[in-house]
Amino acid sequence: MRPSGRATDQLRELKITRNFTKHAEGSVLIECGDTKVICTATLVPGVPRFLKGKGQGWITAEYGMLPRSTGSRMDREAARGKQNGRTVEIQRLIGRSLRAAVDLKKLGEHTLTIDCDVIQADGGTRTASITGGFVALADAVRKLVEMKKIKENPIVSQIAAISVGIYKGEPVLDLDYPEDSNAETDMNVIMNDKGGFIEIQGTAEGAAFDDEQMMGMLKVARKGINEILELQRKALFDA
Amino acid sequence: MRPSGRATDQLRELKITRNFTKHAEGSVLIECGDTKVICTATLVPGVPRFLKGKGQGWITAEYGMLPRSTGSRMDREAARGKQNGRTVEIQRLIGRSLRAAVDLKKLGEHTLTIDCDVIQADGGTRTASITGGFVALADAVRKLVEMKKIKENPIVSQIAAISVGIYKGEPVLDLDYPEDSNAETDMNVIMNDKGGFIEIQGTAEGAAFDDEQMMGMLKVARKGINEILELQRKALFDA
Amino acid sequence: MRPSGRATDQLRELKITRNFTKHAEGSVLIECGDTKVICTATLVPGVPRFLKGKGQGWITAEYGMLPRSTGSRMDREAARGKQNGRTVEIQRLIGRSLRAAVDLKKLGEHTLTIDCDVIQADGGTRTASITGGFVALADAVRKLVEMKKIKENPIVSQIAAISVGIYKGEPVLDLDYPEDSNAETDMNVIMNDKGGFIEIQGTAEGAAFDDEQMMGMLKVARKGINEILELQRKALFDA
Amino acid sequence: MRPSGRATDQLRELKITRNFTKHAEGSVLIECGDTKVICTATLVPGVPRFLKGKGQGWITAEYGMLPRSTGSRMDREAARGKQNGRTVEIQRLIGRSLRAAVDLKKLGEHTLTIDCDVIQADGGTRTASITGGFVALADAVRKLVEMKKIKENPIVSQIAAISVGIYKGEPVLDLDYPEDSNAETDMNVIMNDKGGFIEIQGTAEGAAFDDEQMMGMLKVARKGINEILELQRKALFDA
Amino acid sequence: MRPSGRATDQLRELKITRNFTKHAEGSVLIECGDTKVICTATLVPGVPRFLKGKGQGWITAEYGMLPRSTGSRMDREAARGKQNGRTVEIQRLIGRSLRAAVDLKKLGEHTLTIDCDVIQADGGTRTASITGGFVALADAVRKLVEMKKIKENPIVSQIAAISVGIYKGEPVLDLDYPEDSNAETDMNVIMNDKGGFIEIQGTAEGAAFDDEQMMGMLKVARKGINEILELQRKALFDA
Amino acid sequence: MRPSGRATDQLRELKITRNFTKHAEGSVLIECGDTKVICTATLVPGVPRFLKGKGQGWITAEYGMLPRSTGSRMDREAARGKQNGRTVEIQRLIGRSLRAAVDLKKLGEHTLTIDCDVIQADGGTRTASITGGFVALADAVRKLVEMKKIKENPIVSQIAAISVGIYKGEPVLDLDYPEDSNAETDMNVIMNDKGGFIEIQGTAEGAAFDDEQMMGMLKVARKGINEILELQRKALFDA
Repeated sequence: MRPSGRATDQLRELKITRNFTKHAEGSVLIECGDTKVICTATLVPGVPRFLKGKGQGWITAEYGMLPRSTGSRMDREAARGKQNGRTVEIQRLIGRSLRAAVDLKKLGEHTLTIDCDVIQADGGTRTASITGGFVALADAVRKLVEMKKIKENPIVSQIAAISVGIYKGEPVLDLDYPEDSNAETDMNVIMNDKGGFIEIQGTAEGAAFDDEQMMGMLKVARKGINEILELQRKALFDA
Repeated sequence: MRPSGRATDQLRELKITRNFTKHAEGSVLIECGDTKVICTATLVPGVPRFLKGKGQGWITAEYGMLPRSTGSRMDREAARGKQNGRTVEIQRLIGRSLRAAVDLKKLGEHTLTIDCDVIQADGGTRTASITGGFVALADAVRKLVEMKKIKENPIVSQIAAISVGIYKGEPVLDLDYPEDSNAETDMNVIMNDKGGFIEIQGTAEGAAFDDEQMMGMLKVARKGINEILELQRKALFDA
Repeated sequence: MRPSGRATDQLRELKITRNFTKHAEGSVLIECGDTKVICTATLVPGVPRFLKGKGQGWITAEYGMLPRSTGSRMDREAARGKQNGRTVEIQRLIGRSLRAAVDLKKLGEHTLTIDCDVIQADGGTRTASITGGFVALADAVRKLVEMKKIKENPIVSQIAAISVGIYKGEPVLDLDYPEDSNAETDMNVIMNDKGGFIEIQGTAEGAAFDDEQMMGMLKVARKGINEILELQRKALFDA
Repeated sequence: MRPSGRATDQLRELKITRNFTKHAEGSVLIECGDTKVICTATLVPGVPRFLKGKGQGWITAEYGMLPRSTGSRMDREAARGKQNGRTVEIQRLIGRSLRAAVDLKKLGEHTLTIDCDVIQADGGTRTASITGGFVALADAVRKLVEMKKIKENPIVSQIAAISVGIYKGEPVLDLDYPEDSNAETDMNVIMNDKGGFIEIQGTAEGAAFDDEQMMGMLKVARKGINEILELQRKALFDA
Repeated sequence: MRPSGRATDQLRELKITRNFTKHAEGSVLIECGDTKVICTATLVPGVPRFLKGKGQGWITAEYGMLPRSTGSRMDREAARGKQNGRTVEIQRLIGRSLRAAVDLKKLGEHTLTIDCDVIQADGGTRTASITGGFVALADAVRKLVEMKKIKENPIVSQIAAISVGIYKGEPVLDLDYPEDSNAETDMNVIMNDKGGFIEIQGTAEGAAFDDEQMMGMLKVARKGINEILELQRKALFDA
Repeated sequence: MRPSGRATDQLRELKITRNFTKHAEGSVLIECGDTKVICTATLVPGVPRFLKGKGQGWITAEYGMLPRSTGSRMDREAARGKQNGRTVEIQRLIGRSLRAAVDLKKLGEHTLTIDCDVIQADGGTRTASITGGFVALADAVRKLVEMKKIKENPIVSQIAAISVGIYKGEPVLDLDYPEDSNAETDMNVIMNDKGGFIEIQGTAEGAAFDDEQMMGMLKVARKGINEILELQRKALFDA
């Protein structure tokens, strides 16, 4: 039924490559099928002005797509002088989700910036960014602990994300671009390793969706998230 | 338990004033407790470039807050030269939700712009904008039909929205600002008059939320939405 | 002779509603016929950088129109990323005029920002903004005195404004939009309660105007200003 | 009494140099004492979009100051990415004033852009720009007539401008910077060669001004304008 | 003598990977030691407005660095709303250099956009972009010929680029970051396969350079360019 | 052979007028034939943030063209809200070149801003800006020494610039606009008074250039630079 021939609850092949570039405190290439995103974590001392003196840290995210990561070239946002609405929405989601992974008090007065740059897009770039961004964040935080800048690892949850949807009436897991552009409903689910929801964003593209469809989507999402959490753990203990 | 003394599934007083200003094709003042938003619908012939020649119409939304609609003054976005991320995210949500109300083919080559300007904020401005925006849209579309610019009313669903959340561990309906800033989870629910979901956006602010809490929130949301749909209908047949 | 049937020296109905919104230190809805402007005054401690350490306060103004406050929708300035020339010119005029009301030394190191947002336009929005802005300013300053942040009320003059013009060869008072768009000359007059001029801006739209016409316009302006000053006083002592 | 030793109704030396640069259709260096402005007129076929098909022309103006035309260096507006409020206000005034000189119908579908660039500032740059801009405009229009692009000279009035003010209680003509920064009132007067007013902008800087002071300022303005009109005529017939 | 231990006229290892991403008409990963740049070529029908109807094509380039491609994180240009001076200078150089490779008349009315995005920087990113950009361009043009959109291959020269410099008094080839930041002179040389110069940009960073040093730099540049041209050819015939 | 009838190694008439405007610490009008640029040097205490506490000064440059300095009017960059790529490239070149004239340590914590504003363009505006900018800089620095703000004159080299090119196959000196727009190669050469190169930027516009042509261009450049250095010296000792 699916264009890719996958089962309705089957993830695309997921590959996480740590230390992908050499300068960043955390640097991950995440590949979900043909979607490829470079996630880097930059760690600097200090916090933004609105947090000065509150004895806590901050985590923020930025997202971008290379102009030709997509089928037809998009304008370069730096040249247009402005990030578009979709970009802004996505980077706010990534930042919010990753802050749920960390006890900001324990992070101390440090700022982590997670940059997610899509070099090839085939659906699911925002959820790949969150999943890969968590690994980059974990690497950067580990260095902070190793350098004894903070006493205790401030990570309180492991965070992963996946897209699900209603495609030809059925709940399906991990939509690629051909599915995404034809799905009746599209939902991004971000969860932690205790099975709790961090964020749910579901949008009816054509017909509205009902309770049963929502339950169906959440069920395949939960299955997918569990597999992704396992792959993140393998990647992180693989050093 | 609630700062306002309301029951957990009780809406704030909701008031919809049509024809609030005189120039727009649809003009609504919506008041949800102390939250007050002016929603106007502007109807012009023609469509944006990306829809030229496709024989369909378009609906878009813009959102703004008067600088002193809030407790402390925000920078005026026009003066800063840029809409902030939250604004962009909200106006995309409003536009997407209202497009679900209309058969764009039947709208013909017309563009509807829904402007939602918050003059006083006390939580729930985005859901109030959707609820009020639908009424402004319905008024504008009605004029289009009356002027015989289109043959058939293109509205296919009635759309309303409400915020719900987990406050002190309980699902509550229609959060005001004191609740919103202390809620553990915050969820915006947009539904149509057939009971279908148009959009769900739930965010854990502190702890993650579980299936049961989500079901609880959706239950109070559904109750609230039904009451709001009724109030919209009354307002619309009140001419 | 006038489209509205008013006498040449007759004001439109003027209504001043104080405490219109709940958050601002001063909040006024001013209605001059169909022109409606929300004027809020925000008071914060401190002054802009260029006044640091000079032992005085500052007053500034910002002006905006809701996109559909006018007959056809204007672009939202926040979305275009830039205030247009007319907006900039008007907010500079409002700020300059209101600074003439106050002894900035006595204001101490406080900044007052007057936001004037037009929700419905029918001519005379800038003069309505000054007249309403003065009332909002007076309310905010009163609170400052009541909270004993300053010893003495720093208001030194009461300020009001009105537009006049030459319409069909005659000086007329308080132009509405149909007159304004056909007037030969358009003049904004800002005066204080001692009968002194704070600012005069007269522009020939078609033919140039002569001394006699100017005298005629100033005469009706003076009459109108006196009535407006009286209405401001009533509003302010009406608490 | 005046810092410069001039009589209260005495202009600074005024010099108009035509054909100052070689590319523009009209190019004038105007020197009013130490204030020096290059005014060029550019003439192109066609009109802005909002005038398409109306069978008339358009005149617009732009104003700028070289960063070090003033005592301390101002930021370059091109580098800051934005014209400031004063610039915008001035260029709108110049454009409006010069449009009063021309019958736009007779100009045909041509656009004239008047660029006024201050290379040295010592007070009165906006009125110098109008006075010099008129000469550049006249030169450009003359070429249009000579090239037989239009049948008839569309200039209907000669336009000149001057600043006046109240300085130490007295009306004075043509304020230089030391006077301008200490004047109680500052007024810009734009008139035509029939003695009519095109625009008047008077601002009380300290105390308000009264009718008598206004009459005094207009009297010296009229005297100054007459002298300037004469110098413009000499410059224009001096080819 | 060199930090890397290379001979003065020795290139870093150069790797060219074609078809690096799947959407673009040409997509190349170029690696010069630790410098890694993704170069994609996008081909669209039509030309920019200034070339409409001239019967020729156009080639332009854009350049960007991922925020954490460098040792410390740079601001994201899309977020700051503006490309910095260095970026603008580099993308103009890339575009100019690659236009020298192609007969724009033979390209017909097509536009090629070369995007060069640095994912890891270690000196020489602009010359790597030109060298890699040429390969991406060649791939895109080849497709145009294969699809019979144009009759003849419009490439007239093969273009390659390298940086050279004076380091500790000696001419050296292909500076990496530690050399680049300490070089006395830094020169970028762009040449074609006939041994002609397309562009030379030499800058004294500390002391000025003399004729002899320039000759020395050009000599090693020529040697390096010849090796790079050979590697480009291998990559291009390697399909 | 040359449109102007000049010999291939002949400069245009070069005129340097010091103290051209009255406010700046250094103010020069440089005229190279019909190219006219106002160069001012502004000296302020303090340095940009990135140099704070390093005990050295800074020199930066900005460049602009009056909109009608050219044959057809260019958009005003301040109005467009953005400097174009060419402007940015030029002002970076001017700043870099002039920094080579000065020992920044000896300059102490002062910042020099060189503004180069083209009032009439006929080719060679960037090299004229450097040549004239050096004289303005020298004047400003001299005042600093005279006021005993620094002990020693920090100028270590005299800097001049000229454009050369290949025109009809021959190396020519100091291209005017008709040559510049038809030259096969265009090269800007910046040198000091010891005969050393500060910067070389050569671009093949049509055919590539070879070693011999480059030597030919450098030869005429050197001759031209020597004459310009002499004229700069005359101007500077001419007070």
